[in-house]
Amino acid sequence: MTYTILSGGVGGAKLVTGFADLLPADQLRVIANTGDDFEHLGLHISPDIDTLTYSLAGIANPETGWGLVDETFSCMSALENIGGETWFKLGDKDLATHLHRKTLLDSGKSLSQVTRNLCEKLNVTVPVIPMSNDTVSTMVHSDQGVLSFQEYFVKLQAAPKVEKLIFAGSESAKLPEAARLALSQDSLQAIVLTPSNPYLSIDPILAVPGLKECISASSAPVIAVSPIVGGKALKGPTAKIMQELGLETSVISIAEHYSGIIDGLVIDTVDKAHQDAIENMGIRVLAMNTVMNTAESKKNLAAGITDFAKELTH
Amino acid sequence: MTYTILSGGVGGAKLVTGFADLLPADQLRVIANTGDDFEHLGLHISPDIDTLTYSLAGIANPETGWGLVDETFSCMSALENIGGETWFKLGDKDLATHLHRKTLLDSGKSLSQVTRNLCEKLNVTVPVIPMSNDTVSTMVHSDQGVLSFQEYFVKLQAAPKVEKLIFAGSESAKLPEAARLALSQDSLQAIVLTPSNPYLSIDPILAVPGLKECISASSAPVIAVSPIVGGKALKGPTAKIMQELGLETSVISIAEHYSGIIDGLVIDTVDKAHQDAIENMGIRVLAMNTVMNTAESKKNLAAGITDFAKELTH
Repeated sequence: MTYTILSGGVGGAKLVTGFADLLPADQLRVIANTGDDFEHLGLHISPDIDTLTYSLAGIANPETGWGLVDETFSCMSALENIGGETWFKLGDKDLATHLHRKTLLDSGKSLSQVTRNLCEKLNVTVPVIPMSNDTVSTMVHSDQGVLSFQEYFVKLQAAPKVEKLIFAGSESAKLPEAARLALSQDSLQAIVLTPSNPYLSIDPILAVPGLKECISASSAPVIAVSPIVGGKALKGPTAKIMQELGLETSVISIAEHYSGIIDGLVIDTVDKAHQDAIENMGIRVLAMNTVMNTAESKKNLAAGITDFAKELTH
Repeated sequence: MTYTILSGGVGGAKLVTGFADLLPADQLRVIANTGDDFEHLGLHISPDIDTLTYSLAGIANPETGWGLVDETFSCMSALENIGGETWFKLGDKDLATHLHRKTLLDSGKSLSQVTRNLCEKLNVTVPVIPMSNDTVSTMVHSDQGVLSFQEYFVKLQAAPKVEKLIFAGSESAKLPEAARLALSQDSLQAIVLTPSNPYLSIDPILAVPGLKECISASSAPVIAVSPIVGGKALKGPTAKIMQELGLETSVISIAEHYSGIIDGLVIDTVDKAHQDAIENMGIRVLAMNTVMNTAESKKNLAAGITDFAKELTH
């Protein structure tokens, strides 16, 4: 039985490592958001792919949620001295990833090939598949104009008011064959949408032509995990964005957002009061602890999802 | 009175710092070899410009002759781990220079502008002028095929036998206006060719169309410093290349090489026996200590050259 997991960075990576702790790597496939990818300082940066691979390799920085453990920032300090752009912090070791990725991309390799190569070198055996090898750029239409994702998220620290999110290039982006296979194989037990930001991290994946169709065509249940717990987001600007988009910051809004795509929604026990309302929308609900602050809690959530998936299959 | 100095990396940078120690910055202009420049890991690397600016800023690594003092190599180690190209060692702080340069070049700035910008940030007040803003690539025709300079010099550690040196792109390279001015201003006291490798580091500069003409047109004396001392090169492959090109490794060969361009040649006192032979070629000779292993000896050599220049002017 296999699980195909759609994931963004930090929150998603936590659940992915829970799955990797629970199941053998060959039972897992991860399709990663690349809408946050960007060219910076002449490098190609894929933040979500890196958070996923670093997390799976056990070398992610647990404090920041991005970058590597035991990292140094000598290059950034020197760059600051000579007046370079330092708003996007790149550690010395992390830089190697971006330099190598750029070199391989320039040599004609696809982002999928580069990611496979990197995973191999980091001994990551869980397949991490970019949502597309083509450029899709999450653009934030805001009260401060149209911003690239990293300008919005890192440079302006998610302060601008979001009006609309556009995934530029998604119309013509192709779904990699590995992603198509991961979503259509007979062994598929469930498709899982991690508790990454639905608007910024999961929607870009769903916007790649063919992906939603693969999900619809699959007989495996589709299960999302709510990033909203007790009316709040655990991390990042999810709740802020929901308010700006005129949505109530509750699991109900998450259920409505994913309605028509998912069969089941995992909510936190603190949100159990909303269970009936969500089930009335035709979405089955699993209420359990969804806060992943330990390796144990990550694995438990993954285990809860696998049980839920089996339940939804019968 | 001003001095315009044609220079490559290590050996040249030593003499340039000697001049900078002796004279105010506004009396100096340095025209730097860019034939060794190359794109690597998506970066733009200008080895000789960097050695010159780092040396003038007092932050060059005195042990290696390249790179920065107190440097770390975390990025290179990480790059090695993921199977990247690490034959060209780039320190973490040094990387900032190449990232910033690439960013500025990509934004449409010229190499001259980028170099000026970098010098400013490093408080280098001596003007360092690239020999051209256009790409000129020193190509080594060797018994192992045609090699780019860095492949030959760093990757293969100058082991291949040199048959011919080609400065690809030099036919159409334009001399920057600042270089033209530096070679033609009325205040010019001398044009100095540093003891950088004549074949690899000075010839590419002389190959830029218009530069030799500027030198000929100038009434200021042109003075070279021999990189050959007692029949040997102090550093690098100069002697080896001379042998491979069928030249005797002596100051005589250096004089012959620069004949028609220079008015004076500075040789080491150990080579004083060759003085008459060189003067018979119509080249005036200054014999003095040319080995620059201390700040004092660098400054002394610069002082010797300024005295020699005045002598040649009368």
